[in-house]
Amino acid sequence: MKILVSNDDGIDSRGIFELSQKLKEIGEVIVVAPRTEQSAVGHAITMKIPVRVTEYYRNGEFFGYAVDGTPADCIKMGIKNIMGELPDLVVSGINNGSNAAINIIYSGTVSAAREAAIMDVPAIAVSVTSHTVTEFDYAAEIAKNLALKVAENGLRAGTLLNVNIPDLPKDKIKGVLLTRQGLSKWDDKFEERKDPYGKKYYWLTGSLIDNDLELGTDHYALKNDYVSVTPIHFDLTDYEMFGKMKDWNISG
Amino acid sequence: MKILVSNDDGIDSRGIFELSQKLKEIGEVIVVAPRTEQSAVGHAITMKIPVRVTEYYRNGEFFGYAVDGTPADCIKMGIKNIMGELPDLVVSGINNGSNAAINIIYSGTVSAAREAAIMDVPAIAVSVTSHTVTEFDYAAEIAKNLALKVAENGLRAGTLLNVNIPDLPKDKIKGVLLTRQGLSKWDDKFEERKDPYGKKYYWLTGSLIDNDLELGTDHYALKNDYVSVTPIHFDLTDYEMFGKMKDWNISG
Repeated sequence: MKILVSNDDGIDSRGIFELSQKLKEIGEVIVVAPRTEQSAVGHAITMKIPVRVTEYYRNGEFFGYAVDGTPADCIKMGIKNIMGELPDLVVSGINNGSNAAINIIYSGTVSAAREAAIMDVPAIAVSVTSHTVTEFDYAAEIAKNLALKVAENGLRAGTLLNVNIPDLPKDKIKGVLLTRQGLSKWDDKFEERKDPYGKKYYWLTGSLIDNDLELGTDHYALKNDYVSVTPIHFDLTDYEMFGKMKDWNISG
Repeated sequence: MKILVSNDDGIDSRGIFELSQKLKEIGEVIVVAPRTEQSAVGHAITMKIPVRVTEYYRNGEFFGYAVDGTPADCIKMGIKNIMGELPDLVVSGINNGSNAAINIIYSGTVSAAREAAIMDVPAIAVSVTSHTVTEFDYAAEIAKNLALKVAENGLRAGTLLNVNIPDLPKDKIKGVLLTRQGLSKWDDKFEERKDPYGKKYYWLTGSLIDNDLELGTDHYALKNDYVSVTPIHFDLTDYEMFGKMKDWNISG
């Protein structure tokens, strides 16, 4: 099994290292990841400036390819130019920080996996719910197990699995739940400051509005110490609204 | 009706000017848009560097607020800091170039509208299918009509309308169709070049694989000279795969 590994925290992050080491137990691993951190870039792609690629060494040993671009760029570049063929699987991560609920929309980690899904390659995005993860072993193990399950069962074309793991010792985790995307979202706040020249600037901050109060969503699972596995797709059509709009007379 | 207008082509583009002029016929318009072109940035948000905002004048007259950030940043900033209240509607565009089928995923224009939908504000993204649009009148008229229809009928929470308009004279357009997101996607190609110092770099290019051969999708409608209106949502859960995965024993 050929596995393309990427992330959004950058090729020098610990998460991608632990992930790729673990996945080598079950396949041939090719790492293509952003040279620098690309958190919250969503599904951005680089079209207005050229992209560069260089070999990246870790402790003197070849580790993978560093791309001056976004996570989605890495998947395109990895498949089209570096591999020259479709991998059997793409795994993105291990991200520092939850990519549940609304974070799915902003996430570079998820977008790398989604770019693979667009190219009909099964994909998994893996995140741990802390920005200061100290222990990636269990998350890497989960990624490996799901990779094997995807290889065994397949995913429908265009689907990826978005996996989030509580930042807890393995024996505190209650299990693995199949979930849907949660409803929690950010209450954004721009913190105003002044630069040394007296001009205003703003930092985007905010607090999470927890709308996931019932069993079934990714964020609820995480709050209750479960691993969350959500199948997601790139078809954004709102079929419920589609049905309602048939009465709209939109041509009028 | 208070209408927040944004785009991804930048506050100095012609599309946002024509759009805002037309929408002034039906409401109070506030323009908050990126200072520079932000095409293909997807749903990126700016978290690692601060954001700045300045008043923007067009021919000596106040036009709106220019944000050094992404389209999604503009919506957050526009609602939270500039307006300080939810608008009745957000309209994003008029974009140069189709945002149908897979382009929805990469589009900054759509992501601005989607950011509004996340904040429970009804939203419309408007694009014309050419990168060298000469005539925005009809597209602006369509945007105005749909704005009135949204005001009349409402949208379900979290939904936006993604509207694409053929770049044709009004009398060549056959009508307006309610569509779903198409299946056409890009066959990416990285064009390799060498810089003056002998180092390789790549331009992302590609050709569209037209998978929309039957009535019903956005891209098919556009090819057949119809305006396309697609309701889209930010819930990415793949409910079909969700059903299948119940048999997976994912905890095992």
